[in-house]
Order: sequence, then structure tokens, then C-alpha cells
Amino acid sequence: MEYNGVPIDDTYAEAFPAWISRVIITAATKDFARAAAVEATGFATSTIGCPCEAGIEEYLPGERTPDGRPGYAILICNPSKKRLKEQLIERIGECILTAPTTAAFNGMPDAEEKIPVKLHFFGDKYEHEVRVGDRACWAIPIMEGDFVVEEEYGAVKGVAGGNFFVMGENQMAALMGAKAAVDAISDLPGVITPFPGGIVASGSKVGSRYKFMNASTNEAYCPTLREKVPESKVPENVGALYEIVIDGVDEAAVRKAMAVGIRAAAMIPGVVFLSAGNFGGTLGPVTIHLKDLF
Amino acid sequence: MEYNGVPIDDTYAEAFPAWISRVIITAATKDFARAAAVEATGFATSTIGCPCEAGIEEYLPGERTPDGRPGYAILICNPSKKRLKEQLIERIGECILTAPTTAAFNGMPDAEEKIPVKLHFFGDKYEHEVRVGDRACWAIPIMEGDFVVEEEYGAVKGVAGGNFFVMGENQMAALMGAKAAVDAISDLPGVITPFPGGIVASGSKVGSRYKFMNASTNEAYCPTLREKVPESKVPENVGALYEIVIDGVDEAAVRKAMAVGIRAAAMIPGVVFLSAGNFGGTLGPVTIHLKDLF
Amino acid sequence: MEYNGVPIDDTYAEAFPAWISRVIITAATKDFARAAAVEATGFATSTIGCPCEAGIEEYLPGERTPDGRPGYAILICNPSKKRLKEQLIERIGECILTAPTTAAFNGMPDAEEKIPVKLHFFGDKYEHEVRVGDRACWAIPIMEGDFVVEEEYGAVKGVAGGNFFVMGENQMAALMGAKAAVDAISDLPGVITPFPGGIVASGSKVGSRYKFMNASTNEAYCPTLREKVPESKVPENVGALYEIVIDGVDEAAVRKAMAVGIRAAAMIPGVVFLSAGNFGGTLGPVTIHLKDLF
Amino acid sequence: MEYNGVPIDDTYAEAFPAWISRVIITAATKDFARAAAVEATGFATSTIGCPCEAGIEEYLPGERTPDGRPGYAILICNPSKKRLKEQLIERIGECILTAPTTAAFNGMPDAEEKIPVKLHFFGDKYEHEVRVGDRACWAIPIMEGDFVVEEEYGAVKGVAGGNFFVMGENQMAALMGAKAAVDAISDLPGVITPFPGGIVASGSKVGSRYKFMNASTNEAYCPTLREKVPESKVPENVGALYEIVIDGVDEAAVRKAMAVGIRAAAMIPGVVFLSAGNFGGTLGPVTIHLKDLF
Repeated sequence: MEYNGVPIDDTYAEAFPAWISRVIITAATKDFARAAAVEATGFATSTIGCPCEAGIEEYLPGERTPDGRPGYAILICNPSKKRLKEQLIERIGECILTAPTTAAFNGMPDAEEKIPVKLHFFGDKYEHEVRVGDRACWAIPIMEGDFVVEEEYGAVKGVAGGNFFVMGENQMAALMGAKAAVDAISDLPGVITPFPGGIVASGSKVGSRYKFMNASTNEAYCPTLREKVPESKVPENVGALYEIVIDGVDEAAVRKAMAVGIRAAAMIPGVVFLSAGNFGGTLGPVTIHLKDLF
Repeated sequence: MEYNGVPIDDTYAEAFPAWISRVIITAATKDFARAAAVEATGFATSTIGCPCEAGIEEYLPGERTPDGRPGYAILICNPSKKRLKEQLIERIGECILTAPTTAAFNGMPDAEEKIPVKLHFFGDKYEHEVRVGDRACWAIPIMEGDFVVEEEYGAVKGVAGGNFFVMGENQMAALMGAKAAVDAISDLPGVITPFPGGIVASGSKVGSRYKFMNASTNEAYCPTLREKVPESKVPENVGALYEIVIDGVDEAAVRKAMAVGIRAAAMIPGVVFLSAGNFGGTLGPVTIHLKDLF
Repeated sequence: MEYNGVPIDDTYAEAFPAWISRVIITAATKDFARAAAVEATGFATSTIGCPCEAGIEEYLPGERTPDGRPGYAILICNPSKKRLKEQLIERIGECILTAPTTAAFNGMPDAEEKIPVKLHFFGDKYEHEVRVGDRACWAIPIMEGDFVVEEEYGAVKGVAGGNFFVMGENQMAALMGAKAAVDAISDLPGVITPFPGGIVASGSKVGSRYKFMNASTNEAYCPTLREKVPESKVPENVGALYEIVIDGVDEAAVRKAMAVGIRAAAMIPGVVFLSAGNFGGTLGPVTIHLKDLF
Repeated sequence: MEYNGVPIDDTYAEAFPAWISRVIITAATKDFARAAAVEATGFATSTIGCPCEAGIEEYLPGERTPDGRPGYAILICNPSKKRLKEQLIERIGECILTAPTTAAFNGMPDAEEKIPVKLHFFGDKYEHEVRVGDRACWAIPIMEGDFVVEEEYGAVKGVAGGNFFVMGENQMAALMGAKAAVDAISDLPGVITPFPGGIVASGSKVGSRYKFMNASTNEAYCPTLREKVPESKVPENVGALYEIVIDGVDEAAVRKAMAVGIRAAAMIPGVVFLSAGNFGGTLGPVTIHLKDLF
């Protein structure tokens, strides 16, 4: 199979279930909403070393937000519901409550699972209930005025670790292919690409030759080791590769993002191969075959 | 005392010592360096709820970086040296190693205290030593090529919690005063303003009327509670206020940032009072009187 | 009439017909498309002193562009069709053809009026015809490869000079109200706000007490002259005001943008009055009464 | 000669004298200063089709501006002093006067040549003189308050058309090499790179096989024509190239920018050749040999 003349590997991405919540951050202006969203989704590339995975899902014009102000939807993701709750509390409390002119709303009001964040206790009994449209919210007095926040946040069992590889004849072709993919995915609802700028430069495998390490570089995907390791998966004509990792609210959203991202990458000159990562089925129950995407 | 006609309170900011490290992130282009710096300094507003405080210190043109590429210096800060080490490991490992085209260098090579990060073990014995100028570094094979990283990062005992309040006749005047202050401070070396966009919209006090809360809103600084609490510190002519919190590599850097920020805020029309936050000397040994700054 | 408690003046905006074309700029990535769009729409605030009015209409994801790459739609506007043609030629030739990885497409394929740009002659007989979807285009060999461009650009008789005033109790409230309005309008199709950042800080009137000047400051709308001119239109409680000027593909688009912008401005604390500008019906045949917008 | 292993052509750039002025734009915040600077330097890539060449020279922190607020220095350039004057008047009048919170100052106070802009006549006799530091300025009442502007702007005989070519093994390598060069040059005082994002994707030659065209694509530098034209200057191993064009306040600034830009481009993997453009000495008296730069 190929797209725009670029061969697509006959393989699959292996992903796994994870809990995911959406927070809608609104503010006086787009820039202030974005500053809060960026802070609230930082240090959140991979649950291997970060306390969660998070990213900006999409910009929401005022007509799509509860309070009519411009906003951003962010997604926060963790395999553990308990850790997701912790992270919702800390990230709303430390990165949105503290940010100028913001409010925070439940972005999944219809989800059956509700995570109690209960930030209003910060109000020290000075808080009071307010309605924003049909939502019951709290207004907490703070230095800039009143911070409006919802008490509970819906959560769904989504999919984390959707992925594909963009391989280029040299580093810059692969990089711009990856960037084009991220640009395209950023327009889609229901998904995030949690790594820096949406792009992963280093892949890992479970285990290491150093006994004290749980994970280490995945030598099979290292171009500079192609001649040094027995079973390199870096094709002859590939100088560098990048991975795009996708977390989404459901498998359909992840599949759509993979398809859109792969097509966008294939349009960049110098991108010569597209593949995906899996661990032979040992990691997760969700398998997404590239050939089924198109 | 006043500046540009704006009265400056006769009070002091109370700050405290904290360990602080600088990481220099370089990349192929300014944008890619910035993407990594933003991710690596996210979720890092306050150690009350975040695992560290962090921010972008300054942009470094290629002539000021170890490898001649454009970069950003970031500061990572924690009262505990042990937690600082943990955060250096996680943030370099999860947010810089994984980011496209980046390298990570020790930004405090002359500091006596050295924090061993030892990210090279990720290389699974495929890593090798390289020199970048006069620095001994590791090259770790990854998907995009080789990631270059230094092994140890200097740390100094700096100052966290430097602060001042920008008070405006209404919310937007206070907000733009705060923003002007952050703009001015962002040009200074040795300091960061770790909150979202550099600005704090909500202050806190120790304790709460809810027994299970350790911290809560500081009602004395809430404009909407001025008539409801006995000893409000919000002046009659103030409609809203913001705090700027500053962490720096030493007290001199924090003092300089406070002076520069206060002057910048005072130039915004509608800013009517400038003050600072302290806890009567109970929080920290560093006291910075506003009147000594000018 | 009022919105969100802010009074809306019982007056109308006076606008006038103008020719308007849309160019779709695509590129390898969103950033490169934007760089071209920004250059191509610069120096284009008002036809009083600029050769045209222009602005970015909206971002277009790949699925909405002719070649499947990310892009921006820009609008270029001039009362004179001849000058519009000149500006299309120069701005596509100097600012899009020269920009990395871009292509330029006719954004109004269904318009009856066609403006021949014929950039392909730049190809010096090395150009060749290509099809992009169902569009006949030219491929012009250049340094980076081939530049793809359409030959003709549709134009419609649209409306220029739609406007409203955002008045605040001080400068920063008015400014942020104006910015919120621009944010909201930027999400709408068919319109641009051509001034810097979308906001006008200085209004003008026809004529001057200096005989050699055709236009001059509109003293009736200057807050610092309120006590010095006989018929100031600056209300007592207003410290500053800004104007939002809107050009659109038809009157309906301009009306919608005015309504959306006014509502957004009214949500910013400290915005205390909303009005619009007219010249007593002497400027243009299009009159848009604010009371009819809601 | 080579740098970082990349061969540098034994050739020279041909440039020519041009008049150049610097305007310092300050504003309440960095963002508002930048919005005005971007508008004022748009549609200004080449005097072949634009009314001038212009760009942002550098960001200026408050301590380096006349009024202590953050700002940007822009350069405006034209071979004709008369056209430079016209463009200063229009760009300051239409793009800075109209932009929120800005002021405009003479960025070359020591230049012998003074260009009278005299924007204060816009004030319709309501303007008044003010001092900003040691500068005599005008305050013009406008909608947001008073606009402060200097009357005269220094101009010097600078150098336009400094240039070099970045050639890559494919398009993305060349493009990122060009971007790295622009990043590096953007940190230098006294120069601008006036094309979109600083990069030129299409070169031109004088004349055409179409009699009515004065300029056309330079087929010798078109990779897709390498096999079709007799004397292609595109090396065998080059898939695409970009040009960086530099205007500067003097030849030394342009030479420095060329050296810094070439070195930065040479650090991007896949950049394989660096050269420069000339017209055999027919265009301009300034010749800058690449071998003399290092």
C-alpha cells in the first residue's frame, strides 16, 4: 500500500486503554486562555516519566464554550483513574485557577464516569454557587475577582499510545513530515499528540542491558545503529525517523488521526516510508492496522 | 514612595532559599528549541502542587550556546535538592530527549554543587562519549540520530518566592500592568516568573476553615470580599490585583527583577498601587523591602 | 439597548462597496503558510494611505484546500477593481511566489468577476500546466522546485468600512474589549479586520485646519480633548476608545461580524459603551444600525 | 573552502547602495509593539514589486527605548530617498499611528540625513509638543489618548541585496538550513531579511522571453530544469535551494550577517552547498566574496 507514492508498511500500531478527561479553559482573550492551556498540559509527554499525558485538543470560539468566551479544550490522560483525579486537581488548581481571567469547565458533561475535583474548597467558605448557562458552578473569590469552576469532570475510557512512524531520506525531511502530520492532527477533535510540539524523536523499549533501567533506547529504530545491530528496522533509504503518538477519547478518533497524519506526512518531499510501532501484542489490546485506515 | 505617579507600598516581599539548576536546550531552529523548553517547564507554577517550579529564563543565540545552535536556558527550582534531581531527570528525559533535534547542556558549569542526571544509561550501552567544545558529553542513539546530553548539571542555592502585587483601578488595567511587568522581567538573566504567562491571579494563605485543606484563598487580597472581611488589604480605589512571583539564581537577580517589573507595571495607565506579599516573616529568611529597590 | 449590561448606542455604521478577492495560500506546514499570509496582508490597513486593505480571513485545514495541505485564506480589498488587480499581482508575486513551499489558489472560484493575474509569465516559457483536483494551474520552476499557482482570481463586490467603537472606563479596559472583539471576529468566515492586530487606535475625519491635509484626527472622539472641543462624542465615563473596522465579502458577513464583535467586547469588565461611526450618510450607501444586529 | 564539512562556493554576492531608516516602535506590551511592527513591515520583500523593503531588525527591551516601554526596531529601505520618505510617512501613519498603545521614534538620531515625516499635522492643530527623555516629540490626540511621535527620522546610505544560497540534498534540508540562517541573522543588529519568514524561494533574472516582462525566473538556479537548460548552476547533489537576502545599515553589518547565516545553515544536516548570487558585476558596486567572510 502507498499514499502519494510513499510506501506504507503492512503493520499495526499497538495501543492501550486509558482514562481521559477534557477540561475547557476559557479566558478574556484567546492568548490568556492559551497561556493557561500550555501550562496545564506541560510536563505530560508520557506516563513513563510524567504524571500524566496531556495536550491541547482544540481551540473553541466563544459560541462553543459555556460562558461565551474564547477557550481551549485540553485532554488529560492516565491509565489509572486515581492518578487522573490527582492530576486534574493539581493541574486545574495550579495552572488554571492561578492563570489570569480563566474559568474551567467540564468538557465531558455526558460521560457516565464523574471525577470529583472540588476545587471550591480553596474558597475557604467564601465561595458561592453560580450558574453558567445550565451548569452549576462555583465562584471562588481570588485576587483578580471571582474564579468560576465546575466541581466534577467527566472521564471516559479512551485509547492511549496510538502511533505511527514518519521516515525520511534525511533528518529534515522526516522532521517536516512529522510536523505536517501534527499540523493535520491538530485540527481534529478528540485527540492530542502529547510530546513536545507533537513529535517524538526518541523511541524506547522495555528493559535494558543496564540492570537498573526499566526502559532504554529502541536500537532497532536508530539510524546510526543500522549497521551495528542485528535486526534493524530502519530501511536502507531512511536517514532518520520520528514517531507521532496519539491519545484519544475513543479508538475511532485515534484511527482518524492516524489516517489524517499519515496522509499529511506523505505529502512532504523526502518522506519515504511510513510505519507504526507495536510490541508484538504484549503492550495493549488495541491493534490498529495501517492498511485498514485508508 | 512612588514611581511614574503610582504609589509603592512601604512593605517587603518574603522569599526563601531553594535549589535551582539551569539547562540549556539547543535545537536546529529557534522554534524547535522553544517547543522543548515550553514542554519541559510546564506544570511547574508552585511547589505547593507541582513537582517543581520552572520557566524559560532567556533565549540564547547560537554564539552563546555550547554547540553553536539557537537555544533557550530554562531554570528548574525546588527547595529540596533530592526533588530537584528527580525533576531534572524526568524533565530532561521526557521533554528534551524526546523533542526533535534538541541537545541538553549544563547551564551552570561553574557551580560547586553538581547533580548527576546520567541520562546516558538510556542508551543501553550503545551510547558513546563526544566532546562539544570543551565539554564532555554523551551521544545517545535515538530515532532521529544521536541525542547529545551532558551528564551533570550544576545547582546553586537561589531564591524562590520573590514577588510583588500589581493593583489596578479595574481588572484589565491590573492585568496589563502585570503583563508589562512580565515582559520586562523576561529580558533579565537569572530569573523566571513560573506562573502561567508569568502572572498569578489567585493568592493563597496557609490553612483553611475547612479542616482538611492546608491552604486556601487569601481573603485579605480579594477585591470581591473587601466589604465582607475585617482586614482587607485591597485599597478603596483598586478593582483587581495580580501577583508576579519570581524565582532567581540569587537574591540580587530577584531584587533586580522586582525593581524592573514594578517600574514597568507603573507605566501602564490605570495601575494605581504596587505592593508585595509577606507572611510576617514566618515563611522565609529573605526579606526584600520595596523601598530599597529604587 | 444593552448587552451584558453595557449600553449600545442607537446609531449606525456607515460602510461602502469595495471589490474583494480571496487567495488561498497553502504550504508544507501551517507556519510556512502563515508567514506568507502575514507578508501578503501587511501594509494594508486603509486605502487612505495603503495600496489596499487586506487581512487573514481564516485558517484552512488540509481537507478544505485544493492541494490538501494546510493553508490560510486571505482577503484583499479595494474600491477600485483596477487597483485590486494591481495588488493581487504584486502581493501574489512578491509575497507568495517568493515564500517557501507555498502555492496560491483562487479562493472565489464561483465569482462571476474574474481578475487575470497571470503570474505564469514569470516562468519565462519554462512553466507548464498542471491540474490540482479539478483546477487548471500553472507550475513555474523556481529555486525550491515548482511553484503552483492559479491564473485567475474571482472577485465580488463586498462591503468595506463596517465598524464599531469599543469604549472603556480606561484605556486598558477599552483595549482588551477591542482585542476580545477581534478574537471573536477572527473565527468568522468572509471578513477581515485589516488594522494592526485588528484594532484601530486613531480615527480620522475628512479635511483639516491645515489646508494641505485631506484628513486629520477626529477630535470628537478624542478623550484628551473632551473638555476642549464643543461637541465631543466621548461619554463622561469613558477614558479611551478603539474602533474595529471590518471588510467583508457581503453585507451579511459584515453584520454578523459586528454583532459577534460587539457581544464579545461587552463581556470584558470595564467596557462601558459601544457605538459605531458614520459620516451622516455622506460616505457610503451601506448603513448598518446597531439595534438591528441583535 | 568549507564550514562544518559543507563546501562554500568561491564566488561573491553582488549588492547595491540603498537608503535606509530605522523606526523604533514602542507599546504597552511586547505583543502590541510586535503587531504594529509586523503590519508596518509587510508587503515589503523587494522593491521590484513592493514600495520598499522592510523588516523587523530586533526586539528592544524597555531600557533601550526612548520611553522605557518594550519595542521593536524596524528598518525601511529604498534606493530612492524620495520613495523612502513616502514610505516612512505612509507606514508610520497607517500602521503605527493606528496601532494600539504605540509610539514611534527616530531610530537613527545621529544620522546626518534627516527625513521629515511630520505626522503631527494629522493632529489638526490639537497636537502639542512633549519631551521624551531628551527628544522633542509631538503628542497627537487620538481615540485611545495621545499618540507620541518624532518629527524627523535619520537615514543612512546602507547596502541592499546582500545574499547567499542554501542548497540541500532535498527541499526540506535546504529549507531548514535557510530557516536556521534566518534565526541566526535575526539576532544581529543593523540587518533585516525582508522576504516572507526571511527566506526566498524563487530567484529572478533581468529580462524574459516574453517581451512584455522585465524580470523572470532564473532558470539556471531551478532544480527541476537542471537537465533542460544549458548552464544550470544547480549541483548534481542538490535537490532544492533557497536564497537569503539581507539589507543592512552598512556593508559591515551585511557581511557579518552573511557570515553568521552561512555558518548556521551549514550546521543543518542535509545542507550540501553554500553559494551566493551576482550578476557579473552589472547590478551593483558592492561585491562581497564568501571566502573573505571567514
